[in-house]
Amino acid sequence: MIYLDHAATTPLSEGAFGAMKPYMTNIFGNPSSLHAYGREAANAVIAARDGIAAVLGVPSEDIYFTSGGSEACTAALKGVCAANCDRGKHIVVSAIEHHALIESALDMQKYGWEVTFVKPDRRGIISPREIASALRGDTVFAAVMGANNEVGVIQPIADIYAECQKRGVFFFCDCVQTAGVLPFSRFPADGLAFSAHKFYGPKGFGGLYMRRGTRFSRLIDGGMQERGKRGGTTYVAGAVGCAYALKEAYMTCGETNSRVAALRDMFIKRVESGIAGAHLNGDREMRLPSNVNFSFDGCRGDEIAFCLDLEGVAVSTGSACSSGATSPSHVLLAMGLSEEEAKSSVRFTFGRDNTEEEAEEAYKKLSLVVDRIRRKNI
Amino acid sequence: MIYLDHAATTPLSEGAFGAMKPYMTNIFGNPSSLHAYGREAANAVIAARDGIAAVLGVPSEDIYFTSGGSEACTAALKGVCAANCDRGKHIVVSAIEHHALIESALDMQKYGWEVTFVKPDRRGIISPREIASALRGDTVFAAVMGANNEVGVIQPIADIYAECQKRGVFFFCDCVQTAGVLPFSRFPADGLAFSAHKFYGPKGFGGLYMRRGTRFSRLIDGGMQERGKRGGTTYVAGAVGCAYALKEAYMTCGETNSRVAALRDMFIKRVESGIAGAHLNGDREMRLPSNVNFSFDGCRGDEIAFCLDLEGVAVSTGSACSSGATSPSHVLLAMGLSEEEAKSSVRFTFGRDNTEEEAEEAYKKLSLVVDRIRRKNI
Repeated sequence: MIYLDHAATTPLSEGAFGAMKPYMTNIFGNPSSLHAYGREAANAVIAARDGIAAVLGVPSEDIYFTSGGSEACTAALKGVCAANCDRGKHIVVSAIEHHALIESALDMQKYGWEVTFVKPDRRGIISPREIASALRGDTVFAAVMGANNEVGVIQPIADIYAECQKRGVFFFCDCVQTAGVLPFSRFPADGLAFSAHKFYGPKGFGGLYMRRGTRFSRLIDGGMQERGKRGGTTYVAGAVGCAYALKEAYMTCGETNSRVAALRDMFIKRVESGIAGAHLNGDREMRLPSNVNFSFDGCRGDEIAFCLDLEGVAVSTGSACSSGATSPSHVLLAMGLSEEEAKSSVRFTFGRDNTEEEAEEAYKKLSLVVDRIRRKNI
Repeated sequence: MIYLDHAATTPLSEGAFGAMKPYMTNIFGNPSSLHAYGREAANAVIAARDGIAAVLGVPSEDIYFTSGGSEACTAALKGVCAANCDRGKHIVVSAIEHHALIESALDMQKYGWEVTFVKPDRRGIISPREIASALRGDTVFAAVMGANNEVGVIQPIADIYAECQKRGVFFFCDCVQTAGVLPFSRFPADGLAFSAHKFYGPKGFGGLYMRRGTRFSRLIDGGMQERGKRGGTTYVAGAVGCAYALKEAYMTCGETNSRVAALRDMFIKRVESGIAGAHLNGDREMRLPSNVNFSFDGCRGDEIAFCLDLEGVAVSTGSACSSGATSPSHVLLAMGLSEEEAKSSVRFTFGRDNTEEEAEEAYKKLSLVVDRIRRKNI
C-alpha cells in the first residue's frame, strides 16, 4: 500500500508515541489536581506548552490547547466575534478556508453578522490588496490560511497581516497545513491554529495561539483549565505527543522538505509529460512541498481515487473532512474552475516516509487508471 | 502513594491501552478518508460507537463523540437552546451541576435567556417536585446530573425525567460520574454526557447521546464528521479506548462496586467514630460507591488536602476543574452549608485498585493531620 494522503492525516511519530506512553500508563493524574499525581501531569502539560510556544516563538501563556484544528478555528472566530461585537459585526475570510472557519462565519450570520468572502486568483493565491479592500470600519475578524489543504498554495500572510494591522483588525491564520513544515515566522498573525495529527502527532489534540490582550469568549465551558479559556480535562498525553512531534518535525524539516518536494516535482513532471489533459491546480511555486493536485480531462476525481485505492494507492479528491460530499470542492470553484474541472481533481500529498519508488509506482498506476476510465467513457 | 481522587480522573485500563495501541501506531488513517487506510480507521470508530451505544442501550447513530464531558455538556446546552429558541428562552438546571453546564447556562443570559437554578435539599438531593415547579411553558432545556461529582449524591433522575416529559421539555443528564458505575437505565433522559477518563478510559475523549429527532446546533464547526454535528478529525484511538473501558467497567461493576462501597463505608465509619467534629456531606444512602465527603470543624479543607499530599495521600477539596479556586464549593453552599463548613470539606474517592490497607492508612494519616491542624489553630 502506498499512502499519498498526508494532508488528511499522518502516522504518529514513533518518538512521539514513546513520549506519550508514560502518560497513558503510570502517570495518570488530572493536571488540574493539586496533589502529587496532579502536579506530575501538570508539569508535563507545562513542558509541552513551553515546547510548543518556543517553536511558535510566542509566550507559553498565549497558547490554548484544544481537541484539534476545527475546535481551534471555531473557537477563534466565534470567540473573538462574541467578545468584540461592540466594535462591529463584520467578518472577512478567504473563500478557500477550511470548512471549520467558513461554516463558523456563516453561522454568525444568524446573529446579524455580515461575512465577506475574498476569492483567490486562478492560481489559488489570495491578494493582500483584495483583503485590504474587503476590510471595513466595522470588521472584527479576518482570516486567511497559511497554506490551503487542497491545492497546497502558500499565502502571502505577512502582507495580508500588514493590511489588517494598519486597520486594527484582528487577523487569524489557520496554520494546520503549514505547522511542522514551514516556520511560523512566515505566518505572522494575531491568532493561529495547529493540529497535531497533521505533523506526525496524535489525533484529538491541537491548539490556538492568541496574541496577549485579545478579547475572546471561550467555546467550551467548564473549569479554569487553559486560564479559563477552555473547559475540560487536558488530554495530557496528547499535549506531550504534540510537543514532541512538532519539535521533531522542525528539527528535520529542512531535509524532509527537500526530499518531499523532490518527490512532488518528479511526480508532477511525470504526470505532465505522461498523461494528456492533466492540469495542475494551484500555483507551481508558492506550494507546500507535499502537495500535488491535478484535474484530469474526461475523468471524475472520485472515480480515479476509487480505482487507485483498489490498486493500493491512497489519495483523495480534496479535504478528508468533506469526503463523501457530492458537491465539487469550494476551493477549486473559488479559483475559477468549472464544476466539471473541479470534479475531475485528485490530490496527492507526500510524506516523509514516502520513497521515490512509491512515487514512481503511484504514477504508473495513475496513468493506467486514467487511461482505463477515459476508454470506458468514450 | 495512595490515590483517593478517582472522581477527578482514573488510571487508563491496561486493556484499554492495549486496544488503543494499534491505532496509535500502524493503523493511522483519517476515518473520514474513503481509501483503505481511512476505512480501517472508520471501522474502528464504527465498532467503538456500536459498543458504547450497546452499553447505553441506544442506537449508534444517536451517539456523538466529543473531546470529553465539558464539551459534551456545553454542546448539549448551547446546541439545544440555539436550535430551539423559537420555543422559548428559559433554562432549568440544578444548582449543583458541573461548571460546564452552569457556566454555559449563565452565558446564555447574554443572549436574553433566563435561567432557573434549582437547589438541592440539605442531603444534596434535587426534588422532582422542585424541578416540576421550575418548568415553564417557555422552558427549552432542563438538566440534572446523574450523580454529583463532589458529594456523590445520586439523583432521582427517573422521576425528574417524568416531570420533564409531561411538559415536553428536553431533559439532559450529565452522566460523567455514573458512567461505568451505575447502569444508564437508571438515568433516563433525552440527552446525556460521558467522559472516558472517569471510567478508566483515555483523557481527551467523551460523548453525547441525543435522542433521535432532537434539534441541536453543533458547537464545533467543520466537516461532516459525527453526522454533521461535530467537526474535527475523530480521535480514533480515544474512541477505541473509551469503548473498551466502558464495556470493561460494566462487566466488572457488580464486584467493583461492592468492593469499593465497602472501602467507602469502612472509611466513613472510621472517621465518624475516630475524628470528632467530622460531618458527612451528602446523603448516606443515595451515594456513589466511591464517594466520601466530610467537613471537619476547625479545619480548612485545602490545608487537610495539602498535608495529606505531603503524607502521600492524594485527595481533593472538590472538583478538580475548580482546583486552586479560593471560593467555597457551589455544591456545598447550595446544600445549605455555611461558607466555613463548605471550606472545611475534603473529598475522598475510591477506585477499583484501592485496598483495605490503603483506606486504613489514609484514615490514620487523616486523623493525624486533622489533629495537627486543630492544635495549631488553637
